[in-house]
Amino acid sequence: MNGTGLHLRALGIDTHQEFVIYIHRDCHVCRAEGFEAQTRVEVSCRDRHLIATLNLISSDLLNAGEASLSLSAWRALQVTPGDVVNVTHAPTLDSLSVMRAKIYGHRLDAPALQAIINDVAAGHYSDLHIAAFLTACAGGRMDLQETIDLTAAMVNAGEKIDWQRRDQQPIIDKHCIGGLPGNRTTPIIVAIAAAAGLMMPKTSSRAITSPAGTADVMETLTRVDLDVPAMRKVVEQEGGCLVWGGALTLSPADDILIGVERPLDIDSDSQLVASVLSKKIAAGATHALIDMPVGPTAKVRNQQEALRLQNLMQKVAEAFGLQLRVLCTLGDQPVGRGLGPALEAQDVLAVLQNLPTQPLDLRARALQLAGELLEFCGHSLLGSGHKHAQQLLDSGAAWQKFQAICVAQGDLRAPGIAKLQQPIIAERAGYVSVIDNRRLARVAKLAGAPNAPTAGLYLHVGLGDYVERGMPLFTLHAQAAGELAYAQRYLLTHPVMTLSDEVRS
Amino acid sequence: MNGTGLHLRALGIDTHQEFVIYIHRDCHVCRAEGFEAQTRVEVSCRDRHLIATLNLISSDLLNAGEASLSLSAWRALQVTPGDVVNVTHAPTLDSLSVMRAKIYGHRLDAPALQAIINDVAAGHYSDLHIAAFLTACAGGRMDLQETIDLTAAMVNAGEKIDWQRRDQQPIIDKHCIGGLPGNRTTPIIVAIAAAAGLMMPKTSSRAITSPAGTADVMETLTRVDLDVPAMRKVVEQEGGCLVWGGALTLSPADDILIGVERPLDIDSDSQLVASVLSKKIAAGATHALIDMPVGPTAKVRNQQEALRLQNLMQKVAEAFGLQLRVLCTLGDQPVGRGLGPALEAQDVLAVLQNLPTQPLDLRARALQLAGELLEFCGHSLLGSGHKHAQQLLDSGAAWQKFQAICVAQGDLRAPGIAKLQQPIIAERAGYVSVIDNRRLARVAKLAGAPNAPTAGLYLHVGLGDYVERGMPLFTLHAQAAGELAYAQRYLLTHPVMTLSDEVRS
Repeated sequence: MNGTGLHLRALGIDTHQEFVIYIHRDCHVCRAEGFEAQTRVEVSCRDRHLIATLNLISSDLLNAGEASLSLSAWRALQVTPGDVVNVTHAPTLDSLSVMRAKIYGHRLDAPALQAIINDVAAGHYSDLHIAAFLTACAGGRMDLQETIDLTAAMVNAGEKIDWQRRDQQPIIDKHCIGGLPGNRTTPIIVAIAAAAGLMMPKTSSRAITSPAGTADVMETLTRVDLDVPAMRKVVEQEGGCLVWGGALTLSPADDILIGVERPLDIDSDSQLVASVLSKKIAAGATHALIDMPVGPTAKVRNQQEALRLQNLMQKVAEAFGLQLRVLCTLGDQPVGRGLGPALEAQDVLAVLQNLPTQPLDLRARALQLAGELLEFCGHSLLGSGHKHAQQLLDSGAAWQKFQAICVAQGDLRAPGIAKLQQPIIAERAGYVSVIDNRRLARVAKLAGAPNAPTAGLYLHVGLGDYVERGMPLFTLHAQAAGELAYAQRYLLTHPVMTLSDEVRS
Repeated sequence: MNGTGLHLRALGIDTHQEFVIYIHRDCHVCRAEGFEAQTRVEVSCRDRHLIATLNLISSDLLNAGEASLSLSAWRALQVTPGDVVNVTHAPTLDSLSVMRAKIYGHRLDAPALQAIINDVAAGHYSDLHIAAFLTACAGGRMDLQETIDLTAAMVNAGEKIDWQRRDQQPIIDKHCIGGLPGNRTTPIIVAIAAAAGLMMPKTSSRAITSPAGTADVMETLTRVDLDVPAMRKVVEQEGGCLVWGGALTLSPADDILIGVERPLDIDSDSQLVASVLSKKIAAGATHALIDMPVGPTAKVRNQQEALRLQNLMQKVAEAFGLQLRVLCTLGDQPVGRGLGPALEAQDVLAVLQNLPTQPLDLRARALQLAGELLEFCGHSLLGSGHKHAQQLLDSGAAWQKFQAICVAQGDLRAPGIAKLQQPIIAERAGYVSVIDNRRLARVAKLAGAPNAPTAGLYLHVGLGDYVERGMPLFTLHAQAAGELAYAQRYLLTHPVMTLSDEVRS
């Protein structure tokens, strides 16, 4: 049953994360094994294996004794042109039966979830199977124990960092439940906490459905793709770090799941909790503060949803002995002025440097959260956390610490600015009475964020501001004319701000 | 915003049904529009458009002014090498927001379902989106009205045949809810009904999760890919036909959905009802008989499930004025002896020709259903349908009619036989007390059915039979050694028959 070897030829086809293998239709392996297009096959080279989707070639791109791989599979197998791969039927994945049971409404126990997550982390699921798994688990179809077991499965599938704490020293962490564009407090909070002498090894994700994640923002300023030993060195030296979680092997299934959540644009409660907490637990956190913006166009739309999610997070954290505090914050409008990696980085730098142009709402939120964190982990007395945080920011200590962290991570650079800029003008005078966060985020994404780091938009007004007709409401930033035009075209039919004659309360 | 044209070059990449476009990473369109791998783009050529998934090429397969398409997209756009295509951002699909609402547990109204199904039928959904839609609707998450609206949406998305009936002549149809391998009564019933002078324009599907569908079986005997005018001609001439529904434009979304159900291996109640009834309604049926095998390893496992599904079908049919009768039949073992397209065709031919070797269980079932159908549509008096059906079969009238239908469809050929055959031997003596239909179907599929039409397995024993040690239980049929070995390997760990010392009641 072992397929005879096929020689690899590089075709350079980028399919994003999906593993695809290309074989000629007349290849002996196809005939012998009965393969057809979309068959899932196991590809082996030396001691590495992966499961890929088969595409058949009926031209002379390949001859019958050759095969090629998508760039993702090429990287995962660590092969070079001319290497010989063996291709066989993919083993029956028992976890797919388990996943189908979930689709039909049965609950999943811990071994079942572990089997699924292990197969996801190993790349055994096609994107199509992952889409089915995510959908089956969305919409409140996972109970508490399933969410705990999913979280544990995601932690177990990867590495876990042990920080060798001195004297029960807390390892602190924070996370913002997304949905509020521009809410980039994390770099400021890490700088304050580390300046206070606390240990805050922060791993962040890239954007899922927003114009930027903290990792995207930090990447415009420094290196973020550190491995665990490099991250440990930064944290031991500076007390804090701001790295991308995806480059580590902490909860490795998470980024694969996110890779499918993004085109599907879904992000369910239990998946969200498991994603957030598995990273925190694997990163060795003892205390985690959750910023949960609540507002009609934020991810969490009202107090009831917030309570449900908070309750779920608390219970899951408790099961792992993780101290958790959830802070509900106002989510009615974007925070700061920039939306998009580089534009948000500019806001962060302005606050850290205490510039006159700094967005005061971002500063206020960062101080509120940092103060809460200092009290929560026992560093500051109750009621004095905010004052301590403000002292560390205003004295320049946090800015010093931030620069030191960036340098320790390998670099400190300027975030850059987009080639194309286009102001969007008020067509009437009035008070800004409504801002649609979701549409605003969509506009920033259409303009190219986060893939083009300098793309996005920069706000000139906030809720309650009065604007004259002809004044700019915000400026679009783009690297490509097509993207700029696409954002403009969307705005023609999807207004993002409402101007009224009276100030709304 | 119109992309400048790219010249098509044929690369001959078969991705099954998914539309993929290949463009060079350095192409001006990618730069201008900000495309990346997996971006969904609109591809236009002359007056045809489709939405495809983008794969980026970083080698010299294509130059920067060229593009290529997967074979499926190449066919759908009806292009030739050198044709110029334009590539732009895919329009925002409003129906995807609707689909996401379903994932989050909201119900879908008729316009919402119509929007989704229209986009599916137009090829606007990626397989990943279809997987999410199917999963969101599976597991009892569609209520009655949603199922009716889904059925209507699937009918409306395609053509509808009007048969210009004389004197309210019934247009009859039948369908078997799958899950019982080898239960190939349809060709026999159509032959009997047409021989009785009734009108039975039968469209069938290919296999979803079974080793063969009726269309796969008929394709080993005649042409099945007729269009509506050709089908109409056959029916007007012979009273009946046995064609593949997928070649018609009746409920065109159905086969696209099935194309994703197959790798996912899911087939939900409401999707099943909408799939079955939309084809019947679009085909202009007035009376439909449903054969519903019930058994522990059939698709419908017990009487309770059967009642639920029957109830749902009756209510949906009623909403469209379709007369429906559901007949629950025994589903504890396969019917006939063959599993797989050609092997099942052999069984059908043996019954029609009244050969001594004919499988009597298949004959009995076909007569039971045909008799029920003759009474249900008012052709035979109550209690005399079975006798009428038997007369038409035993007199050779049905066999005559079957041959005439095949000839009218374009061909009458022998089903063929597999190159490789391997008997599977009883390892002990005993009575056959349990047959696992699901595993048996899986073995036939692993042996290559239905893609290799002659592959599958042929049973030598049935429930209750006594076998000596060393006697063959069944014979595997395969075209490829790899497939034969794979079926054998599966059998090592997954026994499909239990032999006991005593006959079970």
